[in-house]
Amino acid sequence: LDEEAMREAARRLDRLTKPPGSLGRLEELAVQLAGITGDADLKPMAKAIVVMAADHGVCEEGVSAFPQEVTRQMVHNFLAGGAAINVLARQTGAEVVCVDIGVKGELEDDRLISRKVRQGTANMAREAAMSREEAERAIEIGIELAEILAGKGIRLFATGEMGIGNTTPSAAVLSVLSDVDAEDAVGRGTGIDDAGMKRKQATIRKAIALNVPDASDAIDVLAKVGGLELAGLAGLVLGAAANRRPVVIDGFISTVAALAACRIAPAAKEYLIPSHLSEEKGHRVALKELGLEPMLSLKMRLGEGSGAVLAFPLIDAAGNVLREMATFDSAGVSRG
Amino acid sequence: LDEEAMREAARRLDRLTKPPGSLGRLEELAVQLAGITGDADLKPMAKAIVVMAADHGVCEEGVSAFPQEVTRQMVHNFLAGGAAINVLARQTGAEVVCVDIGVKGELEDDRLISRKVRQGTANMAREAAMSREEAERAIEIGIELAEILAGKGIRLFATGEMGIGNTTPSAAVLSVLSDVDAEDAVGRGTGIDDAGMKRKQATIRKAIALNVPDASDAIDVLAKVGGLELAGLAGLVLGAAANRRPVVIDGFISTVAALAACRIAPAAKEYLIPSHLSEEKGHRVALKELGLEPMLSLKMRLGEGSGAVLAFPLIDAAGNVLREMATFDSAGVSRG
Repeated sequence: LDEEAMREAARRLDRLTKPPGSLGRLEELAVQLAGITGDADLKPMAKAIVVMAADHGVCEEGVSAFPQEVTRQMVHNFLAGGAAINVLARQTGAEVVCVDIGVKGELEDDRLISRKVRQGTANMAREAAMSREEAERAIEIGIELAEILAGKGIRLFATGEMGIGNTTPSAAVLSVLSDVDAEDAVGRGTGIDDAGMKRKQATIRKAIALNVPDASDAIDVLAKVGGLELAGLAGLVLGAAANRRPVVIDGFISTVAALAACRIAPAAKEYLIPSHLSEEKGHRVALKELGLEPMLSLKMRLGEGSGAVLAFPLIDAAGNVLREMATFDSAGVSRG
Repeated sequence: LDEEAMREAARRLDRLTKPPGSLGRLEELAVQLAGITGDADLKPMAKAIVVMAADHGVCEEGVSAFPQEVTRQMVHNFLAGGAAINVLARQTGAEVVCVDIGVKGELEDDRLISRKVRQGTANMAREAAMSREEAERAIEIGIELAEILAGKGIRLFATGEMGIGNTTPSAAVLSVLSDVDAEDAVGRGTGIDDAGMKRKQATIRKAIALNVPDASDAIDVLAKVGGLELAGLAGLVLGAAANRRPVVIDGFISTVAALAACRIAPAAKEYLIPSHLSEEKGHRVALKELGLEPMLSLKMRLGEGSGAVLAFPLIDAAGNVLREMATFDSAGVSRG
């Protein structure tokens, strides 16, 4: 990070008409953004939410409340502008970039970024979810996409995803990377019942025992018990950091992807901005592992990037405060 | 609240392309707003943040990190558009309504709503902060202002305040109304040191012992150990509720004012929308007393209504989701 830009932002914040530090996280964000971009002016940022969609072979084990075809159906919904993420992104002036990185079946649409690595993962309870080469390819796709979007002027990224069943591989990856039991990593996803929760936990334990992922090698973990959108989002985080662009992390799945990215390149952590605390049980564990504190408590558990885009106005606010507030001197206000 | 409108909003939410309830607080807000307004369509709402400014005689006791003249100076800053609340309100398209309800000294400005009840309160450590009649007058001003603004088309209110020293009367009012010790109600305000904290606690205990406010009579409490902006904001909450308008509650001082309002008229509680959790120690106590859970965790402690306006985009999001999202049927998405 650019420490001179951070010091300059901090100096400016302390001259503004407010008790020092009283804008809390907004001030921290302003300093972080200055450090990431190297610009203490914090100009308004064009924003994109990248929604990576993929399917999961592990759905065969009955781990989701929704049928697998919903992944494809929801991609069409994203492209048509009818999903929650579209509504929330429109409100905040952000672009929704929808990526097929591994949806089962064929999807034809000019508005879709088609980067299908394979037709969904294999069932990790029976074999590795994908090969190492496939995981690497998915990560590269995320990196390349960040590069392309940054080149088109996007200055703030957010992570989003769609993939029926994807809380199961996310919990598996978290369980391995953070060495927590499946029970602490597994939640209800889109709304599975108690019996389904038990199945989910057992499936994760079975997949880990069968595939023996190497906890010190995040790519191995993503390949064996992860998912294509998880690997793609890990790549997006790496690509955003490489291009000095901040990236807002959505809920459980996105945070696990960010955790994998930070295991691959620990420096990426400084480019992350947390958003909300999801209802999905493992999210708290994943956030803690990354040392991130959420700014929003909305009891949401939708994914798609819906929590991340709700944090965009807070990030805009940090910049607006720095650029637009009067100083003690200009406003003739006495200091404490 | 209009229960039929609430049922209609809930029915619509369950048809949208998302797992039922997965938008958490946004869905709860949509149902609450439908109930308050009697309109399940949740049309976009014109918004006003009402910033009540007043001075506090208790500043004589050395309870604030800033000198008293800052109240008046900050009113000028609000009117000139240079304060944090102006920047944050502009971002969200809300109007800032600045009210002099008891600032010390003369303030002349066409943009200011002049409703001065008196030149600041008396020092509550030596006598009652104000008379019962003055407290009632301040409450009526708040009620009338809500009525006037509602008549001008404002559909969503937020509470804000400015008053050097006002965390001290707020802590005193909370201490009496919630029967908690001064130690649990007192925080650092704009940034007082440890010795100042002790002085603040001792001052509050002294004021309560001297004035013996009747905990079962919130107007008595506001008069004896409160403040003019506290009483005015309590009135604003009552007026918003009477006009079936939701009101977003800012931080510690605003929440204590809302608590006083709800002791006067318990039905007002259903019209409250919480915003952030302030760093000011007593805020958690006041929120708990009202059964409100904050949506934002930003470690802010500025006041002015700054946390409340940051919740406006979340409230807009609730309406946008209800109006704009596709249904399972319209988007051709399978249900779980």
